[in-house]
Amino acid sequence: MQTYNGQFYEFFNNYIDSFELEPTLKAALKYSFDSNGKLFRPMLMWTMLEDLKVQNQYYEVALAIEMIHTYSLVHDDLPAMDNDDYRRGKLTSHKMFGEDIAILTGDGLLTQAFDLLAKVDLDPKVVVALIQSFTEAAGISGMIGGQVMDVKNENDPHLTVDTLKIIHDKKTAMMIELPIKCAQLIAGTTDSGCLQAARKLGLFYQIQDDYLDTYGDFTKMGKSSGADDAKVTYSTLYTKQELEAYIQELGSEILEAYAPFPSTQRLVKTIIQREG
Amino acid sequence: MQTYNGQFYEFFNNYIDSFELEPTLKAALKYSFDSNGKLFRPMLMWTMLEDLKVQNQYYEVALAIEMIHTYSLVHDDLPAMDNDDYRRGKLTSHKMFGEDIAILTGDGLLTQAFDLLAKVDLDPKVVVALIQSFTEAAGISGMIGGQVMDVKNENDPHLTVDTLKIIHDKKTAMMIELPIKCAQLIAGTTDSGCLQAARKLGLFYQIQDDYLDTYGDFTKMGKSSGADDAKVTYSTLYTKQELEAYIQELGSEILEAYAPFPSTQRLVKTIIQREG
Repeated sequence: MQTYNGQFYEFFNNYIDSFELEPTLKAALKYSFDSNGKLFRPMLMWTMLEDLKVQNQYYEVALAIEMIHTYSLVHDDLPAMDNDDYRRGKLTSHKMFGEDIAILTGDGLLTQAFDLLAKVDLDPKVVVALIQSFTEAAGISGMIGGQVMDVKNENDPHLTVDTLKIIHDKKTAMMIELPIKCAQLIAGTTDSGCLQAARKLGLFYQIQDDYLDTYGDFTKMGKSSGADDAKVTYSTLYTKQELEAYIQELGSEILEAYAPFPSTQRLVKTIIQREG
Repeated sequence: MQTYNGQFYEFFNNYIDSFELEPTLKAALKYSFDSNGKLFRPMLMWTMLEDLKVQNQYYEVALAIEMIHTYSLVHDDLPAMDNDDYRRGKLTSHKMFGEDIAILTGDGLLTQAFDLLAKVDLDPKVVVALIQSFTEAAGISGMIGGQVMDVKNENDPHLTVDTLKIIHDKKTAMMIELPIKCAQLIAGTTDSGCLQAARKLGLFYQIQDDYLDTYGDFTKMGKSSGADDAKVTYSTLYTKQELEAYIQELGSEILEAYAPFPSTQRLVKTIIQREG
Protein backbone atom coordinates (compact mmCIF):
# COMPACT_ATOMS: atom_id res chain seq x y z
CA MET A 1 0.00 0.00 0.00
CA GLN A 2 2.93 2.31 0.76
CA THR A 3 4.05 2.31 -2.88
CA TYR A 4 0.56 3.26 -4.03
CA ASN A 5 0.77 6.41 -1.90
CA GLY A 6 3.95 7.76 -3.48
CA GLN A 7 2.65 7.05 -6.98
CA PHE A 8 -0.64 8.62 -5.97
CA TYR A 9 0.86 12.04 -5.21
CA GLU A 10 3.08 11.78 -8.27
CA PHE A 11 0.00 11.07 -10.40
CA PHE A 12 -1.70 14.14 -8.92
CA ASN A 13 1.31 16.40 -9.49
CA ASN A 14 1.69 15.18 -13.08
CA TYR A 15 -2.01 15.79 -13.67
CA ILE A 16 -1.78 19.37 -12.35
CA ASP A 17 1.44 19.96 -14.32
CA SER A 18 -0.38 18.95 -17.51
CA PHE A 19 -2.25 22.28 -17.31
CA GLU A 20 -0.81 25.70 -18.09
CA LEU A 21 -1.69 27.46 -14.85
CA GLU A 22 -1.13 30.75 -13.08
CA PRO A 23 1.72 29.86 -10.63
CA THR A 24 -0.31 30.68 -7.50
CA LEU A 25 -3.13 28.35 -8.56
CA LYS A 26 -0.69 25.55 -9.29
CA ALA A 27 1.04 26.04 -5.93
CA ALA A 28 -2.24 26.26 -4.02
CA LEU A 29 -3.64 23.10 -5.63
CA LYS A 30 -0.49 21.11 -4.78
CA TYR A 31 -0.12 22.59 -1.30
CA SER A 32 -3.74 21.92 -0.38
CA PHE A 33 -3.76 18.40 -1.74
CA ASP A 34 -0.51 17.27 -0.19
CA SER A 35 -1.57 17.93 3.38
CA ASN A 36 -0.13 14.80 5.01
CA GLY A 37 -3.49 13.12 4.62
CA LYS A 38 -3.93 9.55 5.76
CA LEU A 39 -5.48 8.72 2.36
CA PHE A 40 -7.97 6.53 4.16
CA ARG A 41 -10.64 6.84 1.45
CA PRO A 42 -8.36 5.98 -1.50
CA MET A 43 -6.90 3.08 0.50
CA LEU A 44 -10.39 1.80 1.19
CA MET A 45 -11.02 1.66 -2.55
CA TRP A 46 -7.65 0.01 -3.20
CA THR A 47 -8.10 -2.70 -0.57
CA MET A 48 -11.61 -3.45 -1.83
CA LEU A 49 -10.36 -3.60 -5.44
CA GLU A 50 -7.70 -6.04 -4.21
CA ASP A 51 -10.33 -8.14 -2.44
CA LEU A 52 -12.43 -8.11 -5.61
CA LYS A 53 -9.39 -9.27 -7.65
CA VAL A 54 -9.10 -6.10 -9.73
CA GLN A 55 -5.43 -5.54 -10.60
CA ASN A 56 -5.63 -1.87 -11.62
CA GLN A 57 -5.59 0.85 -8.91
CA TYR A 58 -7.58 3.39 -10.95
CA TYR A 59 -5.70 6.40 -9.65
CA GLU A 60 -8.09 8.79 -11.42
CA VAL A 61 -10.97 7.53 -9.27
CA ALA A 62 -8.92 7.37 -6.06
CA LEU A 63 -7.64 10.90 -6.71
CA ALA A 64 -11.13 12.17 -7.40
CA ILE A 65 -12.30 10.86 -4.01
CA GLU A 66 -9.37 12.44 -2.17
CA MET A 67 -9.73 15.71 -4.13
CA ILE A 68 -13.39 15.99 -3.09
CA HIS A 69 -12.38 15.29 0.51
CA THR A 70 -9.59 17.90 0.25
CA TYR A 71 -11.76 20.61 -1.29
CA SER A 72 -14.27 20.14 1.53
CA LEU A 73 -11.47 20.67 4.08
CA VAL A 74 -10.17 23.79 2.27
CA HIS A 75 -13.65 25.35 2.26
CA ASP A 76 -14.36 24.12 5.81
CA ASP A 77 -11.26 25.85 7.16
CA LEU A 78 -12.30 29.27 5.76
CA PRO A 79 -12.93 32.10 8.23
CA ALA A 80 -16.67 32.08 7.44
CA MET A 81 -16.79 28.36 8.25
CA ASP A 82 -14.56 26.81 10.97
CA ASN A 83 -11.90 29.55 10.76
CA ASP A 84 -8.94 27.24 11.24
CA ASP A 85 -5.36 28.48 10.86
CA TYR A 86 -3.74 25.06 10.88
CA ARG A 87 -4.51 21.63 9.51
CA ARG A 88 -2.26 18.67 10.27
CA GLY A 89 0.54 20.98 11.40
CA LYS A 90 0.50 23.12 8.23
CA LEU A 91 -1.04 26.54 7.65
CA THR A 92 -4.47 26.17 6.08
CA SER A 93 -4.80 27.13 2.41
CA HIS A 94 -6.40 30.52 3.02
CA LYS A 95 -3.69 31.38 5.58
CA MET A 96 -1.08 30.48 3.02
CA PHE A 97 -2.61 31.92 -0.17
CA GLY A 98 -5.45 34.20 0.91
CA GLU A 99 -9.17 33.56 1.14
CA ASP A 100 -9.95 34.28 -2.50
CA ILE A 101 -7.38 31.79 -3.76
CA ALA A 102 -8.52 29.19 -1.19
CA ILE A 103 -12.14 29.47 -2.36
CA LEU A 104 -11.07 29.10 -5.99
CA THR A 105 -8.66 26.25 -5.15
CA GLY A 106 -11.51 24.36 -3.48
CA ASP A 107 -13.72 24.97 -6.50
CA GLY A 108 -10.86 23.79 -8.69
CA LEU A 109 -10.27 20.54 -6.78
CA LEU A 110 -14.01 19.79 -6.93
CA THR A 111 -14.29 20.47 -10.66
CA GLN A 112 -11.12 18.57 -11.56
CA ALA A 113 -12.33 15.54 -9.61
CA PHE A 114 -15.06 15.20 -12.24
CA ASP A 115 -12.51 15.84 -14.96
CA LEU A 116 -10.44 12.88 -13.79
CA LEU A 117 -13.53 10.68 -13.55
CA ALA A 118 -14.58 11.62 -17.09
CA LYS A 119 -11.11 10.64 -18.33
CA VAL A 120 -10.74 7.25 -16.62
CA ASP A 121 -10.32 4.28 -18.96
CA LEU A 122 -13.52 2.39 -18.15
CA ASP A 123 -16.77 1.62 -19.99
CA PRO A 124 -18.68 4.96 -20.29
CA LYS A 125 -21.64 3.33 -18.52
CA VAL A 126 -19.41 2.64 -15.51
CA VAL A 127 -17.99 6.17 -15.68
CA VAL A 128 -21.49 7.65 -15.58
CA ALA A 129 -22.43 5.36 -12.66
CA LEU A 130 -19.26 6.45 -10.81
CA ILE A 131 -20.08 10.12 -11.36
CA GLN A 132 -23.62 9.55 -10.06
CA SER A 133 -22.18 7.92 -6.94
CA PHE A 134 -19.87 10.88 -6.44
CA THR A 135 -22.60 13.50 -6.72
CA GLU A 136 -24.84 11.50 -4.39
CA ALA A 137 -22.13 11.23 -1.72
CA ALA A 138 -20.58 14.69 -2.12
CA GLY A 139 -23.57 16.80 -3.16
CA ILE A 140 -26.64 18.23 -1.49
CA SER A 141 -27.97 14.75 -0.63
CA GLY A 142 -24.67 13.93 1.04
CA MET A 143 -21.67 15.87 2.27
CA ILE A 144 -22.88 19.39 1.43
CA GLY A 145 -26.33 18.64 2.87
CA GLY A 146 -24.69 17.39 6.06
CA GLN A 147 -22.43 20.44 6.25
CA VAL A 148 -25.40 22.80 6.06
CA MET A 149 -27.25 20.77 8.74
CA ASP A 150 -24.13 20.97 10.90
CA VAL A 151 -23.79 24.76 10.43
CA LYS A 152 -27.47 25.25 11.23
CA ASN A 153 -27.55 22.95 14.28
CA GLU A 154 -24.13 23.26 15.90
CA ASN A 155 -25.30 25.69 18.56
CA ASP A 156 -28.57 23.93 19.32
CA PRO A 157 -28.39 22.63 22.91
CA HIS A 158 -31.43 20.40 22.24
CA LEU A 159 -29.90 18.56 19.30
CA THR A 160 -31.18 14.97 19.35
CA VAL A 161 -29.08 11.89 18.80
CA ASP A 162 -31.14 11.10 15.68
CA THR A 163 -30.33 14.45 14.08
CA LEU A 164 -26.68 14.13 15.06
CA LYS A 165 -26.55 10.73 13.36
CA ILE A 166 -28.17 12.08 10.19
CA ILE A 167 -25.63 14.93 10.09
CA HIS A 168 -22.71 12.51 10.44
CA ASP A 169 -24.20 10.05 7.98
CA LYS A 170 -24.43 12.74 5.31
CA LYS A 171 -21.32 14.71 6.21
CA THR A 172 -18.91 11.84 6.81
CA ALA A 173 -20.33 8.37 6.26
CA MET A 174 -21.45 8.76 2.65
CA MET A 175 -17.93 9.76 1.66
CA ILE A 176 -16.62 6.61 3.42
CA GLU A 177 -19.15 4.49 1.55
CA LEU A 178 -18.09 6.08 -1.77
CA PRO A 179 -14.72 4.28 -2.19
CA ILE A 180 -16.36 0.90 -1.48
CA LYS A 181 -19.10 1.70 -4.00
CA CYS A 182 -16.53 2.78 -6.59
CA ALA A 183 -14.60 -0.48 -6.17
CA GLN A 184 -17.81 -2.45 -6.61
CA LEU A 185 -18.85 -0.47 -9.71
CA ILE A 186 -15.40 -0.99 -11.24
CA ALA A 187 -15.48 -4.72 -10.42
CA GLY A 188 -19.10 -5.03 -11.58
CA THR A 189 -20.33 -6.46 -8.28
CA THR A 190 -22.74 -5.32 -5.57
CA ASP A 191 -22.65 -6.13 -1.87
CA SER A 192 -25.07 -3.94 0.05
CA GLY A 193 -23.79 -5.30 3.39
CA CYS A 194 -20.38 -3.83 2.61
CA LEU A 195 -21.92 -0.48 1.73
CA GLN A 196 -23.98 -0.39 4.92
CA ALA A 197 -20.92 -1.31 6.96
CA ALA A 198 -19.03 1.60 5.37
CA ARG A 199 -21.82 3.96 6.46
CA LYS A 200 -21.59 2.46 9.95
CA LEU A 201 -17.83 3.02 9.86
CA GLY A 202 -18.42 6.71 9.20
CA LEU A 203 -20.72 6.90 12.20
CA PHE A 204 -18.29 4.80 14.25
CA TYR A 205 -15.47 7.18 13.43
CA GLN A 206 -17.41 10.19 14.72
CA ILE A 207 -18.54 8.44 17.90
CA GLN A 208 -15.01 7.22 18.54
CA ASP A 209 -13.73 10.75 17.86
CA ASP A 210 -16.06 12.19 20.49
CA TYR A 211 -15.09 9.43 22.93
CA LEU A 212 -11.35 9.97 22.44
CA ASP A 213 -11.88 13.73 22.59
CA THR A 214 -13.54 13.43 25.99
CA TYR A 215 -11.84 10.46 27.60
CA GLY A 216 -8.76 9.87 25.45
CA ASP A 217 -5.10 10.50 26.08
CA PHE A 218 -4.71 13.92 24.48
CA THR A 219 -1.03 13.40 23.70
CA LYS A 220 -2.11 10.71 21.22
CA MET A 221 -4.85 12.91 19.73
CA GLY A 222 -2.54 15.81 18.88
CA LYS A 223 -5.12 18.33 20.05
CA SER A 224 -6.26 19.42 23.48
CA SER A 225 -8.74 17.06 25.08
CA GLY A 226 -12.27 18.30 25.62
CA ALA A 227 -12.02 20.86 22.79
CA ASP A 228 -15.68 20.47 21.79
CA ASP A 229 -17.10 20.96 25.29
CA ALA A 230 -19.79 23.49 24.30
CA LYS A 231 -21.30 21.36 21.52
CA VAL A 232 -23.80 18.54 21.77
CA THR A 233 -21.77 15.41 20.96
CA TYR A 234 -22.10 11.67 21.55
CA SER A 235 -20.18 12.28 24.78
CA THR A 236 -22.88 14.64 26.06
CA LEU A 237 -25.71 12.37 24.87
CA TYR A 238 -24.32 9.08 26.27
CA THR A 239 -22.49 8.06 29.42
CA LYS A 240 -18.91 6.76 29.18
CA GLN A 241 -20.14 3.18 29.70
CA GLU A 242 -22.88 3.51 27.10
CA LEU A 243 -20.39 4.92 24.61
CA GLU A 244 -17.94 2.09 25.24
CA ALA A 245 -20.65 -0.51 24.72
CA TYR A 246 -21.84 1.25 21.56
CA ILE A 247 -18.32 1.47 20.13
CA GLN A 248 -17.71 -2.19 20.96
CA GLU A 249 -20.92 -3.36 19.30
CA LEU A 250 -20.67 -1.18 16.21
CA GLY A 251 -17.01 -2.11 15.72
CA SER A 252 -17.80 -5.82 15.79
CA GLU A 253 -20.65 -5.44 13.29
CA ILE A 254 -18.41 -3.57 10.89
CA LEU A 255 -15.54 -6.04 11.10
CA GLU A 256 -17.92 -8.94 10.59
CA ALA A 257 -19.31 -7.39 7.39
CA TYR A 258 -15.78 -7.23 5.98
CA ALA A 259 -14.86 -10.81 6.94
CA PRO A 260 -15.06 -11.98 3.28
CA PHE A 261 -12.76 -9.10 2.28
CA PRO A 262 -9.50 -9.59 4.20
CA SER A 263 -7.50 -6.62 2.85
CA THR A 264 -10.34 -4.23 3.51
CA GLN A 265 -10.97 -5.78 6.92
CA ARG A 266 -7.32 -5.28 7.86
CA LEU A 267 -7.49 -1.59 6.93
CA VAL A 268 -10.81 -1.09 8.72
CA LYS A 269 -9.36 -2.73 11.81
CA THR A 270 -6.71 0.02 12.05
CA ILE A 271 -9.55 2.53 12.41
CA ILE A 272 -11.63 0.44 14.80
CA GLN A 273 -8.65 -0.13 17.07
CA ARG A 274 -7.09 3.35 16.97
CA GLU A 275 -6.41 5.03 20.26
CA GLY A 276 -5.96 8.59 19.06
CA MET B 1 -37.94 30.71 -26.35
CA GLN B 2 -40.07 32.40 -23.69
CA THR B 3 -41.87 29.12 -22.84
CA TYR B 4 -38.56 27.30 -22.43
CA ASN B 5 -37.59 29.79 -19.71
CA GLY B 6 -40.63 29.17 -17.49
CA GLN B 7 -40.25 25.41 -17.85
CA PHE B 8 -36.55 25.78 -17.16
CA TYR B 9 -37.03 27.28 -13.69
CA GLU B 10 -39.82 24.80 -12.97
CA PHE B 11 -37.48 21.96 -13.93
CA PHE B 12 -34.84 23.34 -11.55
CA ASN B 13 -37.29 23.76 -8.67
CA ASN B 14 -38.67 20.24 -9.16
CA TYR B 15 -35.14 18.89 -9.22
CA ILE B 16 -34.25 20.63 -5.95
CA ASP B 17 -37.56 19.54 -4.40
CA SER B 18 -36.72 15.92 -5.22
CA PHE B 19 -34.11 16.06 -2.40
CA GLU B 20 -34.84 16.06 1.32
CA LEU B 21 -32.94 19.18 2.31
CA GLU B 22 -32.37 21.40 5.30
CA PRO B 23 -34.78 24.33 4.60
CA THR B 24 -32.02 26.97 4.46
CA LEU B 25 -30.09 25.02 1.84
CA LYS B 26 -33.22 24.55 -0.28
CA ALA B 27 -34.07 28.26 -0.01
CA ALA B 28 -30.51 29.36 -0.76
CA LEU B 29 -30.24 27.12 -3.83
CA LYS B 30 -33.52 28.43 -5.27
CA TYR B 31 -32.83 32.06 -4.33
CA SER B 32 -29.35 32.01 -5.86
CA PHE B 33 -30.43 30.30 -9.04
CA ASP B 34 -33.49 32.43 -9.74
CA SER B 35 -31.61 35.70 -9.93
CA ASN B 36 -33.40 37.21 -12.93
CA GLY B 37 -30.66 35.88 -15.15
CA LYS B 38 -30.84 36.45 -18.87
CA LEU B 39 -30.24 32.72 -19.41
CA PHE B 40 -28.02 33.61 -22.33
CA ARG B 41 -25.96 30.41 -22.11
CA PRO B 42 -28.91 27.99 -22.01
CA MET B 43 -30.58 29.91 -24.84
CA LEU B 44 -27.42 29.62 -26.89
CA MET B 45 -27.63 25.84 -26.53
CA TRP B 46 -31.34 25.80 -27.35
CA THR B 47 -31.01 27.93 -30.49
CA MET B 48 -28.10 25.82 -31.71
CA LEU B 49 -30.05 22.61 -31.02
CA GLU B 50 -32.91 24.12 -33.05
CA ASP B 51 -30.54 24.98 -35.89
CA LEU B 52 -29.17 21.44 -35.76
CA LYS B 53 -32.74 20.06 -35.94
CA VAL B 54 -32.69 18.48 -32.46
CA GLN B 55 -36.24 18.55 -31.05
CA ASN B 56 -35.40 17.96 -27.36
CA GLN B 57 -34.24 20.89 -25.18
CA TYR B 58 -32.18 18.74 -22.78
CA TYR B 59 -32.99 20.79 -19.71
CA GLU B 60 -30.51 18.82 -17.60
CA VAL B 61 -27.63 20.07 -19.74
CA ALA B 62 -28.99 23.62 -20.03
CA LEU B 63 -29.52 23.70 -16.25
CA ALA B 64 -26.03 22.37 -15.61
CA ILE B 65 -24.54 25.22 -17.68
CA GLU B 66 -26.59 27.86 -15.86
CA MET B 67 -25.87 26.27 -12.46
CA ILE B 68 -22.12 26.47 -13.09
CA HIS B 69 -22.51 30.09 -14.17
CA THR B 70 -24.60 30.80 -11.04
CA TYR B 71 -22.21 29.11 -8.61
CA SER B 72 -19.37 31.20 -10.03
CA LEU B 73 -21.38 34.38 -9.36
CA VAL B 74 -22.26 33.28 -5.80
CA HIS B 75 -18.59 32.65 -5.00
CA ASP B 76 -17.49 35.78 -6.92
CA ASP B 77 -19.76 37.99 -4.84
CA LEU B 78 -18.26 36.78 -1.53
CA PRO B 79 -16.50 39.35 0.70
CA ALA B 80 -13.12 37.72 0.06
CA MET B 81 -13.69 38.06 -3.68
CA ASP B 82 -15.61 41.02 -5.20
CA ASN B 83 -17.54 41.76 -1.99
CA ASP B 84 -20.83 42.65 -3.69
CA ASP B 85 -24.01 43.25 -1.71
CA TYR B 86 -26.36 43.25 -4.68
CA ARG B 87 -26.68 41.36 -7.93
CA ARG B 88 -29.35 42.26 -10.45
CA GLY B 89 -31.28 44.26 -7.87
CA LYS B 90 -31.38 41.47 -5.26
CA LEU B 91 -29.23 40.94 -2.19
CA THR B 92 -26.36 38.58 -2.97
CA SER B 93 -26.56 35.07 -1.51
CA HIS B 94 -24.13 35.70 1.35
CA LYS B 95 -25.98 38.89 2.30
CA MET B 96 -29.21 36.92 2.39
CA PHE B 97 -28.04 33.65 3.99
CA GLY B 98 -24.60 34.30 5.44
CA GLU B 99 -21.17 33.58 4.03
CA ASP B 100 -21.00 29.96 5.18
CA ILE B 101 -24.27 29.06 3.48
CA ALA B 102 -23.28 30.97 0.34
CA ILE B 103 -20.01 29.03 0.06
CA LEU B 104 -21.85 25.73 0.51
CA THR B 105 -24.63 26.77 -1.89
CA GLY B 106 -22.04 27.51 -4.56
CA ASP B 107 -20.40 24.14 -3.91
CA GLY B 108 -23.84 22.55 -4.13
CA LEU B 109 -24.76 24.15 -7.46
CA LEU B 110 -21.41 23.06 -8.91
CA THR B 111 -21.74 19.46 -7.70
CA GLN B 112 -25.39 19.11 -8.74
CA ALA B 113 -24.55 20.36 -12.24
CA PHE B 114 -22.56 17.15 -12.68
CA ASP B 115 -25.39 15.18 -11.09
CA LEU B 116 -27.82 16.46 -13.73
CA LEU B 117 -25.35 15.71 -16.51
CA ALA B 118 -24.85 12.17 -15.23
CA LYS B 119 -28.63 11.65 -15.28
CA VAL B 120 -29.42 12.98 -18.75
CA ASP B 121 -30.99 10.48 -21.15
CA LEU B 122 -28.23 10.30 -23.74
CA ASP B 123 -25.69 7.67 -24.84
CA PRO B 124 -23.16 7.33 -21.97
CA LYS B 125 -20.36 8.15 -24.42
CA VAL B 126 -22.03 11.49 -25.14
CA VAL B 127 -22.58 12.08 -21.41
CA VAL B 128 -18.89 11.53 -20.71
CA ALA B 129 -17.95 13.87 -23.59
CA LEU B 130 -20.33 16.51 -22.22
CA ILE B 131 -18.80 16.22 -18.76
CA GLN B 132 -15.31 16.59 -20.23
CA SER B 133 -16.42 19.75 -22.03
CA PHE B 134 -17.82 21.10 -18.77
CA THR B 135 -14.68 20.51 -16.75
CA GLU B 136 -12.55 22.00 -19.52
CA ALA B 137 -14.64 25.18 -19.67
CA ALA B 138 -15.39 25.56 -15.96
CA GLY B 139 -12.27 24.10 -14.35
CA ILE B 140 -8.67 25.17 -13.87
CA SER B 141 -8.04 25.27 -17.64
CA GLY B 142 -11.06 27.57 -18.04
CA MET B 143 -13.20 29.68 -15.75
CA ILE B 144 -11.37 28.98 -12.48
CA GLY B 145 -7.99 29.49 -14.12
CA GLY B 146 -9.22 32.81 -15.53
CA GLN B 147 -10.60 33.88 -12.16
CA VAL B 148 -7.26 33.28 -10.46
CA MET B 149 -5.45 35.19 -13.22
CA ASP B 150 -7.92 38.03 -12.76
CA VAL B 151 -7.46 38.09 -8.96
CA LYS B 152 -3.69 38.07 -9.35
CA ASN B 153 -3.54 40.72 -12.09
CA GLU B 154 -6.39 43.11 -11.36
CA ASN B 155 -4.19 45.69 -9.68
CA ASP B 156 -1.33 45.47 -12.16
CA PRO B 157 -1.10 48.82 -13.97
CA HIS B 158 1.14 47.22 -16.61
CA LEU B 159 -1.32 44.51 -17.62
CA THR B 160 -0.94 43.85 -21.35
CA VAL B 161 -3.75 43.45 -23.82
CA ASP B 162 -2.61 39.87 -24.49
CA THR B 163 -2.89 38.90 -20.82
CA LEU B 164 -6.26 40.66 -20.55
CA LYS B 165 -7.51 38.64 -23.53
CA ILE B 166 -6.29 35.36 -22.03
CA ILE B 167 -8.06 36.18 -18.76
CA HIS B 168 -11.34 36.90 -20.55
CA ASP B 169 -10.99 33.92 -22.83
CA LYS B 170 -10.68 31.60 -19.84
CA LYS B 171 -13.00 33.41 -17.46
CA THR B 172 -15.84 34.22 -19.86
CA ALA B 173 -15.42 32.97 -23.40
CA MET B 174 -14.98 29.26 -22.66
CA MET B 175 -18.30 29.23 -20.80
CA ILE B 176 -19.92 30.89 -23.88
CA GLU B 177 -18.39 28.24 -26.13
CA LEU B 178 -19.68 25.47 -23.84
CA PRO B 179 -23.41 25.64 -24.83
CA ILE B 180 -22.49 25.54 -28.52
CA LYS B 181 -20.21 22.57 -27.89
CA CYS B 182 -22.94 20.80 -25.90
CA ALA B 183 -25.44 21.28 -28.73
CA GLN B 184 -22.91 19.87 -31.20
CA LEU B 185 -22.11 16.87 -28.99
CA ILE B 186 -25.82 16.13 -28.56
CA ALA B 187 -26.45 16.48 -32.30
CA GLY B 188 -23.34 14.47 -33.14
CA THR B 189 -21.80 17.20 -35.31
CA THR B 190 -18.69 19.38 -35.15
CA ASP B 191 -18.21 22.87 -36.54
CA SER B 192 -15.03 24.42 -35.22
CA GLY B 193 -15.88 27.79 -36.85
CA CYS B 194 -18.95 28.00 -34.59
CA LEU B 195 -16.88 27.20 -31.52
CA GLN B 196 -14.25 29.80 -32.38
CA ALA B 197 -16.98 32.38 -32.98
CA ALA B 198 -18.40 31.63 -29.52
CA ARG B 199 -14.99 32.29 -27.99
CA LYS B 200 -14.85 35.55 -29.95
CA LEU B 201 -18.31 36.38 -28.66
CA GLY B 202 -17.04 36.03 -25.10
CA LEU B 203 -14.20 38.43 -25.86
CA PHE B 204 -16.58 40.73 -27.74
CA TYR B 205 -18.89 40.85 -24.73
CA GLN B 206 -16.09 42.00 -22.42
CA ILE B 207 -14.78 44.62 -24.85
CA GLN B 208 -18.31 45.90 -25.41
CA ASP B 209 -18.84 45.94 -21.63
CA ASP B 210 -15.76 48.10 -21.13
CA TYR B 211 -16.84 50.37 -23.97
CA LEU B 212 -20.38 50.81 -22.62
CA ASP B 213 -18.97 51.27 -19.12
CA THR B 214 -16.77 54.13 -20.29
CA TYR B 215 -18.78 55.74 -23.08
CA GLY B 216 -22.29 54.29 -22.66
CA ASP B 217 -25.51 55.81 -21.41
CA PHE B 218 -25.42 54.73 -17.74
CA THR B 219 -29.24 54.72 -17.41
CA LYS B 220 -29.28 51.77 -19.82
CA MET B 221 -26.45 50.00 -18.01
CA GLY B 222 -28.15 49.95 -14.62
CA LYS B 223 -24.88 50.82 -12.91
CA SER B 224 -22.91 54.00 -12.61
CA SER B 225 -20.76 54.74 -15.64
CA GLY B 226 -16.99 54.59 -15.24
CA ALA B 227 -17.16 52.22 -12.27
CA ASP B 228 -13.98 50.39 -13.24
CA ASP B 229 -11.82 53.51 -13.62
CA ALA B 230 -8.87 52.20 -11.57
CA LYS B 231 -8.44 48.94 -13.51
CA VAL B 232 -6.67 48.29 -16.77
CA THR B 233 -9.48 47.61 -19.26
CA TYR B 234 -9.91 47.69 -23.04
CA SER B 235 -10.95 51.31 -22.59
CA THR B 236 -7.60 52.21 -21.05
CA LEU B 237 -5.67 50.15 -23.63
CA TYR B 238 -7.47 51.44 -26.74
CA THR B 239 -8.85 54.79 -27.87
CA LYS B 240 -12.61 55.22 -28.35
CA GLN B 241 -12.18 55.04 -32.13
CA GLU B 242 -9.99 51.95 -31.96
CA LEU B 243 -12.52 50.26 -29.69
CA GLU B 244 -15.40 51.09 -32.03
CA ALA B 245 -13.51 49.69 -35.02
CA TYR B 246 -12.58 46.55 -33.05
CA ILE B 247 -16.17 46.01 -31.89
CA GLN B 248 -17.45 46.54 -35.44
CA GLU B 249 -14.98 44.07 -36.96
CA LEU B 250 -15.33 41.38 -34.30
CA GLY B 251 -19.14 41.65 -34.39
CA SER B 252 -19.23 41.12 -38.16
CA GLU B 253 -16.92 38.10 -37.95
CA ILE B 254 -19.11 36.49 -35.30
CA LEU B 255 -22.38 37.08 -37.14
CA GLU B 256 -20.87 35.71 -40.33
CA ALA B 257 -19.84 32.48 -38.59
CA TYR B 258 -23.46 31.94 -37.49
CA ALA B 259 -24.96 32.66 -40.91
CA PRO B 260 -25.77 28.96 -41.51
CA PHE B 261 -27.49 28.86 -38.07
CA PRO B 262 -30.32 31.42 -38.23
CA SER B 263 -31.81 30.92 -34.72
CA THR B 264 -28.41 31.19 -33.10
CA GLN B 265 -27.48 34.14 -35.28
CA ARG B 266 -30.66 35.96 -34.20
CA LEU B 267 -29.81 35.44 -30.53
CA VAL B 268 -26.17 36.44 -31.01
CA LYS B 269 -27.33 39.60 -32.81
CA THR B 270 -29.18 40.75 -29.66
CA ILE B 271 -25.81 40.71 -27.86
CA ILE B 272 -23.83 42.30 -30.69
CA GLN B 273 -26.35 45.12 -30.99
CA ARG B 274 -27.03 45.77 -27.29
CA GLU B 275 -26.68 49.32 -26.07
CA GLY B 276 -26.53 48.67 -22.32
